[in-house]
Amino acid sequence: MLPSCVTYFERIGRQRHPGLVVWFTGLSGAGKTTLATLLERHLFQRGCLVYLLDGDALRLGLCSELGYSIADRRENVRRAGEVARILADAGFIVLAALISPLRQDRERIRISLAQAQFIEVFVNAPLEICEQRDVKGLYQKARTGLISEFTGVSSPYEPPLNPELNLRTDLKSVKECLDQLHIYIAARIAPVSGQ
Amino acid sequence: MLPSCVTYFERIGRQRHPGLVVWFTGLSGAGKTTLATLLERHLFQRGCLVYLLDGDALRLGLCSELGYSIADRRENVRRAGEVARILADAGFIVLAALISPLRQDRERIRISLAQAQFIEVFVNAPLEICEQRDVKGLYQKARTGLISEFTGVSSPYEPPLNPELNLRTDLKSVKECLDQLHIYIAARIAPVSGQ
Repeated sequence: MLPSCVTYFERIGRQRHPGLVVWFTGLSGAGKTTLATLLERHLFQRGCLVYLLDGDALRLGLCSELGYSIADRRENVRRAGEVARILADAGFIVLAALISPLRQDRERIRISLAQAQFIEVFVNAPLEICEQRDVKGLYQKARTGLISEFTGVSSPYEPPLNPELNLRTDLKSVKECLDQLHIYIAARIAPVSGQ
Repeated sequence: MLPSCVTYFERIGRQRHPGLVVWFTGLSGAGKTTLATLLERHLFQRGCLVYLLDGDALRLGLCSELGYSIADRRENVRRAGEVARILADAGFIVLAALISPLRQDRERIRISLAQAQFIEVFVNAPLEICEQRDVKGLYQKARTGLISEFTGVSSPYEPPLNPELNLRTDLKSVKECLDQLHIYIAARIAPVSGQ
């Protein structure tokens, strides 16, 4: 007779916060990784189990054989969602930063998680602003045809309809956006951390 | 200027043990999940961050579209290895229980990790014994042709050449095997936990 595995409740009983997935979606250059990286540092310093799952990093490993067709993008998001689910099950606050262009794919991840474990953060800056920033020079390449199937230019992006947070990174400072994130997440993990 | 993400060393500094991947390989019925489950409980009770990555569970999620051809098995093991790497990077002691039949694929995972992070555990029982046990009734189905490409029967299994641990589950009791695991892992995490 086998004892059961360590349960989710045993894990969160120890670390005093639930597993969560904070899903940052938005155009390239909107500020997903910037915000997620700063939030990771903040939560870590407060004693949380936190892990940043970055889309670019996943494409070097788990998703290394996938390209940028719609089908491959969907599979990329699906796999990221599965890994996020495993990490949340292990008790982590997962900060997933991926363009994740399609609404349906993000909703599938929400449904795959326990209720209230999914926080969709729309990192929201208009295409023109992201294109002006063009931190990685990708928009330039997309416009000149060096990159095909680029989100917002030659591949679709479906903004969230009811995200838990909508952060206008073109109108607010990084600090203001982070404050909004801190307040929201603190409220979500409070019931457990206050036990 | 962005601060860097939380580093691996910051994580292990807090939890006082390194991220590790303990990879249980062996035939179906050899005892991989049994041993990994008991080890998970043991390490959790000792305060470790530990997570069981079970091959059967992965096939319901991350690897749900994969079958049992050699190519699909290899992709299955590759993805499991990538997830194990992410969890080890997050500071977990990952217990991965997968048949993982091919030597080359297991070695690739070892190489992908930081040195000394990979512990290969050969859960070693002869085919005849696993077939006698036949806990899930799968050998019977394989022999009667209801299941094709079954490891050890109609699909290859390459035993490890130099596993860190070789546990003869046909000759030793579960308790004896677990004691060997406990001693080995305790030694591997000691340099950090003793800081």
